[in-house]
Amino acid sequence: MTKKPTLDDLTDRLVAFRDERDWKKFHSLKNLLLSLSLEAAELLELAQWQSDEELESRLSDPKVQERLREECADIFLYLLLIAERVGFDLSQAGADKIERNDAKYPVEKARGTAKKYTEL
Amino acid sequence: MTKKPTLDDLTDRLVAFRDERDWKKFHSLKNLLLSLSLEAAELLELAQWQSDEELESRLSDPKVQERLREECADIFLYLLLIAERVGFDLSQAGADKIERNDAKYPVEKARGTAKKYTEL
Amino acid sequence: MTKKPTLDDLTDRLVAFRDERDWKKFHSLKNLLLSLSLEAAELLELAQWQSDEELESRLSDPKVQERLREECADIFLYLLLIAERVGFDLSQAGADKIERNDAKYPVEKARGTAKKYTEL
Amino acid sequence: MTKKPTLDDLTDRLVAFRDERDWKKFHSLKNLLLSLSLEAAELLELAQWQSDEELESRLSDPKVQERLREECADIFLYLLLIAERVGFDLSQAGADKIERNDAKYPVEKARGTAKKYTEL
Repeated sequence: MTKKPTLDDLTDRLVAFRDERDWKKFHSLKNLLLSLSLEAAELLELAQWQSDEELESRLSDPKVQERLREECADIFLYLLLIAERVGFDLSQAGADKIERNDAKYPVEKARGTAKKYTEL
Repeated sequence: MTKKPTLDDLTDRLVAFRDERDWKKFHSLKNLLLSLSLEAAELLELAQWQSDEELESRLSDPKVQERLREECADIFLYLLLIAERVGFDLSQAGADKIERNDAKYPVEKARGTAKKYTEL
Repeated sequence: MTKKPTLDDLTDRLVAFRDERDWKKFHSLKNLLLSLSLEAAELLELAQWQSDEELESRLSDPKVQERLREECADIFLYLLLIAERVGFDLSQAGADKIERNDAKYPVEKARGTAKKYTEL
Repeated sequence: MTKKPTLDDLTDRLVAFRDERDWKKFHSLKNLLLSLSLEAAELLELAQWQSDEELESRLSDPKVQERLREECADIFLYLLLIAERVGFDLSQAGADKIERNDAKYPVEKARGTAKKYTEL
């Protein structure tokens, strides 16, 4: 049984992929941030003109699941390239952010409301 | 030494965080896709008005590294919530996408050029 | 009574504003496109976490109207700067696009459906 | 000689176009904001992987000018629909914003720098 790839595995593969094609010159940090933004829009496009309910109901279609999965993968790969460039571990950054949010949105104040932490 | 958190660890924590605050009702798939897009813009804002070189040179500033790290974490957490909602593993999706890109951009054709695969 | 400003009036004022501050060097086309995208996200942020109905109901609040008006103005000003840089008239471009949409989405086929023209 | 279309002309045509196709039901304010954001990304895509200079040099190509013109038109039409829905005049909003920017970025402080007004 194949182990799930770790973030370091994926980052190593991305760097190899990039360097085999001599693409590092295109991967300025600004270009990586820009491309991630474009992929986020391709993901959001799946919700265009649809109500919350319509989108949820389309989730039973394997084609729609695959589109979502693929667009999320694109964004994820850019995150890994950015993390590699800047020099941080994405999963540790995620863990730290969950803790910061825990403090910003204490359960007793934030429960049930979408208010921003500045309004709590 | 603390092990690095796995994607499943982070997803479990995100779900717990969401449910403690009774926030699931806000987390329609459409709203998650929309919020991810907004975070991608906050990340891109770090490049506003700056040339590639200016942004690269600011990377030596720990405050700038921290901003990048935190905005990437925000996007990453939304990807995990979306993956949880739709029902796929983000790292496997990433691995599959690298393979698909490998086929779409064969080294001998793609080397050194930013052309889209449809133009190769 | 003051006449409404024309797009040419606004463009002249934008160019003067920019040149008084010696800002043309920041206004590469790439930077203008990037900044417009950021403003579009600031506009979209007004809808974050809200259902269609919640957002519509907040329209009675003059503060919300003002936020929407201001964010739209930001985007509009970038459009005018881009049009000035590339060399086209934005209102004529708009008129031409309405005609092109009219042909892409004939009433008898498009009525009542949000399907893309490729699926009609 | 045909007069250039005014913003009111364009808005009237957009409303007629929408109503002939019974599309008002899709045009919740949230959906209009979302769609404008997607169009902004399509515009930004024209700069993907390109340096400022590469993009500027491509401006001599009529096909590139036409793509830019068309994507700007798409964004412009959504701005008009949003202005119609919320109840403001886009050109007056633009004029007011130029004045507000004039105060936020006084020439003597802002000249030559891209610093945000909060840092001036």
